Amino acid sequence: MTAESSWLDALAFDQDGLIPAIAQDAQSGTVLMMAWMNAEAVAETVRTGQAVYYSRSRKRLWRKGEESGHTQTIHEIRLDCDGDVLLLSVTQHGGIACHTGREHCFFRRLDATPDGKTWQVTDPVLKDPADIYTGKKS
Amino acid sequence: MTAESSWLDALAFDQDGLIPAIAQDAQSGTVLMMAWMNAEAVAETVRTGQAVYYSRSRKRLWRKGEESGHTQTIHEIRLDCDGDVLLLSVTQHGGIACHTGREHCFFRRLDATPDGKTWQVTDPVLKDPADIYTGKKS
Repeated sequence: MTAESSWLDALAFDQDGLIPAIAQDAQSGTVLMMAWMNAEAVAETVRTGQAVYYSRSRKRLWRKGEESGHTQTIHEIRLDCDGDVLLLSVTQHGGIACHTGREHCFFRRLDATPDGKTWQVTDPVLKDPADIYTGKKS
Repeated sequence: MTAESSWLDALAFDQDGLIPAIAQDAQSGTVLMMAWMNAEAVAETVRTGQAVYYSRSRKRLWRKGEESGHTQTIHEIRLDCDGDVLLLSVTQHGGIACHTGREHCFFRRLDATPDGKTWQVTDPVLKDPADIYTGKKS
C-alpha cells in the first residue's frame, strides 16, 4: 500500500464513487458551496492544492475556476467521523464561488411571510454570469 | 398548492428522496456535520425549529439529540443555487455535534508527515460517548 492509497482508502465513497466536499472560506468561515469529488478529483486536489471536483452533469473532472477563473486554493482538508464527507478550507479567488455570480451558493434563505414560508434571495450578484463565462479567464 | 408544498417543492431530492444538510454553528461558524434529510425531515425541522435528519443506516427520522440530548436549534435555513443542498445555521446544545463526543465531525485533518500524508486527529473528545449514550438525556 502506497502512502497515497493509505490516506485515500480512509474515504468512504458512495455507490457512484463520489464523496460530498464542502468548501468553506478560510477567512470568513462562510460556507461557499458543496460539490462532489471522485477519487481522482480528491487526489488531484491534494496534489495541486487547488479544488478539483467531479461534475455529475458533465461526467468529468471539474477544475473549479477552469472557465470562470474563480479558482479555490486549498488551506486544509478535513474528513468527518464516518469518512464520507470532506470539508475544504479555501481561499476563493475572485470572491465568487457560485455560477450565478454570487459569493456563495447558499443565497436563498427560508423566510416567513404573511403568505407562508418562501425562499428569499439575500445575496447580491457581484458579477454578471455573462461576463464571467466569456471563455476568457480574466 | 399549499404554502408548505410550495417552498418544499423548490428542493431537489436525490434518487433516494434525500438532500444533504450541512449544520454550521451560528456563533462560531464551525461546520459541525453533514447529514441527510428526506422531505418529512425537512418539514419537521421547519415546523419544530429543531434539526431532524433522516438516518440512512436506521432508515428512519433521526431527531438530532434524541439519545444524546445534543439537540440543534435552527436559526436559519439556506438552499443552494441548484436546490440540492441545505445549509442550517444552528445552536448546538451541549457543544457536541459528533457521536464521538467531539464538537464537530470534521476532527481529522490531512497532514503531511515524513512518511506521507495522513489523517491527523485535531480535536479532543469533550465527553466519553459511553457517558453520552446512556439512554438518559442529561
